[in-house]
Amino acid sequence: MKRDGFSFALKHVDAATGARRSVFQTPRGAVELPAFMPVGTVGTVKGLTIDAVRATGAQMILGNTYHLALRPGEEIVRDLGGLHRFMGWDGPILTDSGGFQVFSLAQMTKVTEDRATFRSHIDGSLVELSPERAVAIQEALGSDVAMVLDHVVGLPNTFEVLADAVARTTRWAERSLRVAKRADQVLFGIVQGGLFPELRVESARQLVELDFPCYAVGGLSVGESPAEMYAMLDVTVPALPADRPRYLMGVGTPRDLLEAIRRGIDLFDCVMPTRNGRNALAFTDEGTRRMRNLKYACDAAPLEENCPCPACRHSRGYIRHLFMAGEMLGPILLSAHNLTYYQRLVAGARAAIEADRFGSFYQERLSGWQGKEQAAEG
Amino acid sequence: MKRDGFSFALKHVDAATGARRSVFQTPRGAVELPAFMPVGTVGTVKGLTIDAVRATGAQMILGNTYHLALRPGEEIVRDLGGLHRFMGWDGPILTDSGGFQVFSLAQMTKVTEDRATFRSHIDGSLVELSPERAVAIQEALGSDVAMVLDHVVGLPNTFEVLADAVARTTRWAERSLRVAKRADQVLFGIVQGGLFPELRVESARQLVELDFPCYAVGGLSVGESPAEMYAMLDVTVPALPADRPRYLMGVGTPRDLLEAIRRGIDLFDCVMPTRNGRNALAFTDEGTRRMRNLKYACDAAPLEENCPCPACRHSRGYIRHLFMAGEMLGPILLSAHNLTYYQRLVAGARAAIEADRFGSFYQERLSGWQGKEQAAEG
Repeated sequence: MKRDGFSFALKHVDAATGARRSVFQTPRGAVELPAFMPVGTVGTVKGLTIDAVRATGAQMILGNTYHLALRPGEEIVRDLGGLHRFMGWDGPILTDSGGFQVFSLAQMTKVTEDRATFRSHIDGSLVELSPERAVAIQEALGSDVAMVLDHVVGLPNTFEVLADAVARTTRWAERSLRVAKRADQVLFGIVQGGLFPELRVESARQLVELDFPCYAVGGLSVGESPAEMYAMLDVTVPALPADRPRYLMGVGTPRDLLEAIRRGIDLFDCVMPTRNGRNALAFTDEGTRRMRNLKYACDAAPLEENCPCPACRHSRGYIRHLFMAGEMLGPILLSAHNLTYYQRLVAGARAAIEADRFGSFYQERLSGWQGKEQAAEG
Repeated sequence: MKRDGFSFALKHVDAATGARRSVFQTPRGAVELPAFMPVGTVGTVKGLTIDAVRATGAQMILGNTYHLALRPGEEIVRDLGGLHRFMGWDGPILTDSGGFQVFSLAQMTKVTEDRATFRSHIDGSLVELSPERAVAIQEALGSDVAMVLDHVVGLPNTFEVLADAVARTTRWAERSLRVAKRADQVLFGIVQGGLFPELRVESARQLVELDFPCYAVGGLSVGESPAEMYAMLDVTVPALPADRPRYLMGVGTPRDLLEAIRRGIDLFDCVMPTRNGRNALAFTDEGTRRMRNLKYACDAAPLEENCPCPACRHSRGYIRHLFMAGEMLGPILLSAHNLTYYQRLVAGARAAIEADRFGSFYQERLSGWQGKEQAAEG
């Protein structure tokens, strides 16, 4: 890595899988990889105070450029001291570029070579997002890691559409690198290519030429099956340099994380733990639990034994009651639990890799889940 | 007090007012009076984890018998270990009797000498609440302090209606005392009488004959003006024994608290800090702040300097943003701030009484508020 204070150290690769134990050092502290970043969409990890986020074990969090640019606007965040001070988080922050939200949330989106134009999902106003503007917004936010604007398209899609998006994503990556100015911020590239192996490899090749300090895999978890996603990782990861971190964007279920770690992915973000938590779904080593279920009404056990989160100091009966009564504390506690669960999962993965037993760890988790986590919402 | 582990110690009366500094000892710890109890309606102080409630400085909290009996039902709370374990609060808990909710929330309420019959505000089902049942519910909940069922009527109302309610409240108090069984729970009486001084005095006289360990003033904050409420305290408090704590139920604004403390009230509960916090209203020594106001958009100052709450580690601009974006963290943070504000207020009152300067303290607060707090919702 070229910028001061950022470095990547690969410490160990699991003896039997591609799982890697590494450290991503930033000026605001180290991130032990594999790592999971809670999503702080609009400057808050939904439902949690920043101390509660820290207590889950998170070392790095994500902010959404699209959301923050619309509300409150990046100038306000900058004028209030930048995203770290705004949120009260002094650890590293990664901001995405808005490419995924332009695809998934914006209305009447039109992508030209120069920029994406769309209507805000909040008030319908016309917004433009170019690679240069995505960098400028992220520089105003002051994140430690900024993402290049990528061209995300839905799946399934034709080879031609995806090849065009790959080429544009590379050209936009070049434009992003040309305008990035902050010495305390690094820019990550994003591999696209849909479900076409040759496009994934070509996208990786083109971006590696641009020499990014980290490569993200984007455009997945947009409608394809888990098997299709894993297959894309099988072809994409080998096309990425071993001496840089690898980030799988917007993924996923606990099983998705372990499948990706097994293939050499180091970094994740996803709204699943918080979104599902707000909807009464708890992740545990025994699979997911739907906490509105009547069977928990008089259940005195915690969600999970030995879980240090604030939810697990209560009974399942209490958690169920909170959801049945429509109390805010239900979503608050399950968001904390699920984020803690994800942090415990990646911490377990890190320890297993160090002990050269990631495969066993994966099988233990999988047999505990018994496939139940597939019911969670993406 | 007659029950083991409960006692009241009057430490000091302010030299120039009726304000009292005292301690209410319970088997689950001491409550420094004057004290404010956050309202944990249905087994949760809305929006806060129990650690966050503790961090506001609260020593005793309130649970609502009516709400808990409807949802989840007192048997479930009992089977899950009682209200303390249910909520995760190991300090003292007071439960009200449901009298106020039967009056304010229930539908098609019919009060006979035997009991109140009403329809649940949740599902319309028929519910009966007698003095004996109110005690039984509270014994199942396992609160440290239970309240007798009182007959609350709206204001203004006729002398006849209020005299009838006073007499019934006394008869219900006697019935409550007869059936109360738990040795680890004390029962407080409730003075009624509307805005008729002679009824207030007569209600107090009748209840004092029953020798309760504490006397509550009920049936206020139900539509009368602050001046009318203060006038009722002027006549009621002198009719209560000095060697027992005095509890003003469901009150009120910060100014109400100080006006009541000045008149010798020791204990309070109210939903104002949390309800207003959820609605973006912050209580401060400089009056209330409506946090959706545009003037806070770029305001880097905290709500209040020197406030230890989690909201005050952020800027006003951040708090405003959370409310404008509809984020849960806005209500969470302002609930924590407002409860912390109320706790700081009663702590300040306690210190001022000890120093024989409660009058000055009251004037300082009042000039800071400049009457602004009247805009808050009851």
